[in-house]
Amino acid sequence: MAHPADLTQQELQLSEQKTPPATPGTVRPGGRTARTRAAVRDAVLTGLVEHGYPGLTVEYVAEHSGVHKTTLYRRWGGVEGLLADALDLAGEDTWTPPDTGSLRNDLRALAHEIVDNFGDAAKAAVPTAFIAAAFQSERAAEGLRGFYGERFARCAPLVARAVERGEVPEGTDAGEVARAVSAPLFFRLFVTREPIDGTLADRAADAALAAARAGVYT
Amino acid sequence: MAHPADLTQQELQLSEQKTPPATPGTVRPGGRTARTRAAVRDAVLTGLVEHGYPGLTVEYVAEHSGVHKTTLYRRWGGVEGLLADALDLAGEDTWTPPDTGSLRNDLRALAHEIVDNFGDAAKAAVPTAFIAAAFQSERAAEGLRGFYGERFARCAPLVARAVERGEVPEGTDAGEVARAVSAPLFFRLFVTREPIDGTLADRAADAALAAARAGVYT
Repeated sequence: MAHPADLTQQELQLSEQKTPPATPGTVRPGGRTARTRAAVRDAVLTGLVEHGYPGLTVEYVAEHSGVHKTTLYRRWGGVEGLLADALDLAGEDTWTPPDTGSLRNDLRALAHEIVDNFGDAAKAAVPTAFIAAAFQSERAAEGLRGFYGERFARCAPLVARAVERGEVPEGTDAGEVARAVSAPLFFRLFVTREPIDGTLADRAADAALAAARAGVYT
Repeated sequence: MAHPADLTQQELQLSEQKTPPATPGTVRPGGRTARTRAAVRDAVLTGLVEHGYPGLTVEYVAEHSGVHKTTLYRRWGGVEGLLADALDLAGEDTWTPPDTGSLRNDLRALAHEIVDNFGDAAKAAVPTAFIAAAFQSERAAEGLRGFYGERFARCAPLVARAVERGEVPEGTDAGEVARAVSAPLFFRLFVTREPIDGTLADRAADAALAAARAGVYT
């Protein structure tokens, strides 16, 4: 299959005329509209990582996605809409929280995912660019709020299992536990600018566990 | 006393000739050199808040501090040096951690300071601008690392008192406790872009306390 960005502008415009997004069933998942959206998203992310929010323009996205500027303005409204949709797409993955059989190990695995993702420059580039963009764009900030809110909500089963196993009190707020695991690592990455590693990941997880056990998050 | 920015360029250059910084005793605290540095710092902070790191130029600082561009380049090297010095100056305050008589209340007071500072747009502007600048400037990142490292080191007496009172185990790392209190609040402010308040401040403090008691930070 051709990479989305290889589609010509004519093909994309044709595909839009043939498959109006408002008619259910006519746009198949993975079809041309989905590919257009993915191509546009890829161009937004590349632009954001390369030039930051102030350097991201509809012109750049048009050039790098092969989608006409007029189409971008019509469907996304402009840079802010493009940014928001890229974040929405990022949230449409199938990520589920770890399930190791114990809360301690689930939380440690969660913390290690963060260290692994941000320790890898290629994986870190996009989330870092979004976190930076939120300093300048309210839409990016809203997008991040939505993205992380949804991500933490996915941790509910992880904490529900721990409550069933009697590891933490009933009524423990899963989102707060997930935030507690993440916060010390993101704080070092983006505020105090200190390095993170596996030892700090374990400590973040153990701290969240101790607080949860003590009933701080009920 | 005239505001530092009111000093003319001639006065400043004269003052530098008369008071070489390398000779101890000739530059009195609060004297012209200190005032120059403060005027330059003020201009750096104003520029950073108004235009962000990409918009901060030596020209801007010269215009807003009344200090000649040549002097700025000679003494600070350029924008990066100006930024680093402004952060160094920010660290030269007399802040000491709370001392309420109990660790729980000390940590809660610490957390409420963060909520109060970042809840006040005027107080929040400068630290927010530095945190944003660190995404683009390694010198700003180094400066933040130094600033927070020194700030957390000042929390040693707070934890030492708690150890004496038997509230946390001997060997508890004060810096880690201070980071634990701060992290959930900064994480919401600058990553998940969620609001913070007094309830979250108390929860951040109580979580840090529970983890410290459990020996996570020894």
